[in-house]
Amino acid sequence: MIRVGYPAVLSRDLFTDFPSEVELIPLSEKSDTVHEIDVWIPDPYSTRALRVWPHLRGVRLVLSLMAGTEWIPATVGPHVTICSARGAHNISTAEWTLSAIFTLLKYVPLYLDIQRSGIWKRRFEASAHYATITGDARPLYPPVMLEELTGKTVLIVGHGSIGKEIERMLAPFHVELIRVARTPRAQPLVHPVTELDSLLPKADIVILILPLTDESRGLIGTAQFNRMRHGALLVNAARGPVVQTDALIAALQSGRIRAALDVTDPEPLPEGHPLWSCPNLYITPHIGGSSPQFAARSVRIAAAELRRFMAGEPLHNAVQLAV
Amino acid sequence: MIRVGYPAVLSRDLFTDFPSEVELIPLSEKSDTVHEIDVWIPDPYSTRALRVWPHLRGVRLVLSLMAGTEWIPATVGPHVTICSARGAHNISTAEWTLSAIFTLLKYVPLYLDIQRSGIWKRRFEASAHYATITGDARPLYPPVMLEELTGKTVLIVGHGSIGKEIERMLAPFHVELIRVARTPRAQPLVHPVTELDSLLPKADIVILILPLTDESRGLIGTAQFNRMRHGALLVNAARGPVVQTDALIAALQSGRIRAALDVTDPEPLPEGHPLWSCPNLYITPHIGGSSPQFAARSVRIAAAELRRFMAGEPLHNAVQLAV
Repeated sequence: MIRVGYPAVLSRDLFTDFPSEVELIPLSEKSDTVHEIDVWIPDPYSTRALRVWPHLRGVRLVLSLMAGTEWIPATVGPHVTICSARGAHNISTAEWTLSAIFTLLKYVPLYLDIQRSGIWKRRFEASAHYATITGDARPLYPPVMLEELTGKTVLIVGHGSIGKEIERMLAPFHVELIRVARTPRAQPLVHPVTELDSLLPKADIVILILPLTDESRGLIGTAQFNRMRHGALLVNAARGPVVQTDALIAALQSGRIRAALDVTDPEPLPEGHPLWSCPNLYITPHIGGSSPQFAARSVRIAAAELRRFMAGEPLHNAVQLAV
Repeated sequence: MIRVGYPAVLSRDLFTDFPSEVELIPLSEKSDTVHEIDVWIPDPYSTRALRVWPHLRGVRLVLSLMAGTEWIPATVGPHVTICSARGAHNISTAEWTLSAIFTLLKYVPLYLDIQRSGIWKRRFEASAHYATITGDARPLYPPVMLEELTGKTVLIVGHGSIGKEIERMLAPFHVELIRVARTPRAQPLVHPVTELDSLLPKADIVILILPLTDESRGLIGTAQFNRMRHGALLVNAARGPVVQTDALIAALQSGRIRAALDVTDPEPLPEGHPLWSCPNLYITPHIGGSSPQFAARSVRIAAAELRRFMAGEPLHNAVQLAV
């Protein structure tokens, strides 16, 4: 019998797909009871999970419900295998990315402001916004009220499962796609990160969806912003520290670029931080991966991985193998 | 030599694709000069175009740059052929529709409000918003922060060129699609409008993209709102009078449905109109079809139609043939 500890806040109904020879043990962050378990499913919020860990004994496998597992190795040590729920965030995060692009290209903040003011003819303010943000001051008629995604050049930095999902959702818009990742590939063409600087000037939209590593930390700084087009849109759906916050603030305040961020550095972003009030910026507080479908989806991924673990088969989403 | 009058506010560069045997005559709304022309390209804004019309003589063909041509027949009479720029708005209007859906499903107004307040932990307000709007009060963990488009049931009312374009852009989201139009079809399945009421309860999202006719005027009223799901989203990308405004206001104020409107009745929506401040509503002031690409695209459609007219070939976009 394999003993699996799971967060007591999760509904037990979520685990109906789990192998029948498993004993499910709810773990409460508020209890000091010591539990002897084989497999630990930590709470999706690491702060809660970290309160549970000291009361666990015998853990051989951690099944994270999240794609990001950065905090786990240092917590559980090298003698435990760790698997992520790679894939559970794909759809929600890719959809957030599309929605964030549309929020900026379709001037949603401006139109919400116009709606609140109740003054229909303020629609023409969009035209001045277009000229300012793109630097395209030609007199256009009819006046421009929003921009199109169709035909834009999109640079995706990171080509894992979420990056591929974003690419799939961009397909109807006939964008010119440029892919950059740690590991270059020929088919489809994925450029190495070393070529990023030379590719940035081509892009209307730059999407960050790569893992945070020593190499990706601070990847986007002043030099990169300077190479981006006037009015280009940076979308960070990866991790906050991939972008240098001070350089981002300067680039936004200069009016040269725009940005949409689901992640920031620091995070949570403290009250009064200058990033909150930068122009041409849409911030969401790290919510892009969450949805009503998320819990069921990530538990399903964990169940499949657990079955492989119990059968001694190769794991699909191991981020650390026990030494 | 064919004489073509076009709005002087449009750049002449847009007309490089026009047949070389055409004489292009700029028409200013501010001039009282009488012009003898064969073909009239009216200003995209009908109020301007109506000031030009009394000074025109000899017009045999009107080439509208817009898809909507409602005002033209009564103005020019039955002895003139009228062609729309059907297709020119397809991409921009379909993109607006997608962006409006995302604005509501991803709680963009709430997150912009949170951004303005600069309080990260207000993210959890999204969870209460989800419970209120959907009527799904089960305790969900992790808390719900936004909704997914993927897997939703989408009812498209109207299956012309823009409706098909919307369908194409929805493809990556694996939505369950239900089509309704005046003319039912078998492949793909398009239901007749008479079945609308019985189909409404199935839909998470109802998209209106049908022409305004005697039959479609007032199509969506109290009875239809009562048949929609709790939290269903109505998107009007068609014409304002397709929806009964009083019934819409009541449905929104009850909290049962949400809506995104690019068109309203009346239009422009006057200051102080109760629609402006309804909850769970996103209004844009009839801007969905506009974009930097629009003018070039509609002039290209007009040029192709003019070539057919000059060659005596069947017209593609005639909305009225001269009697």
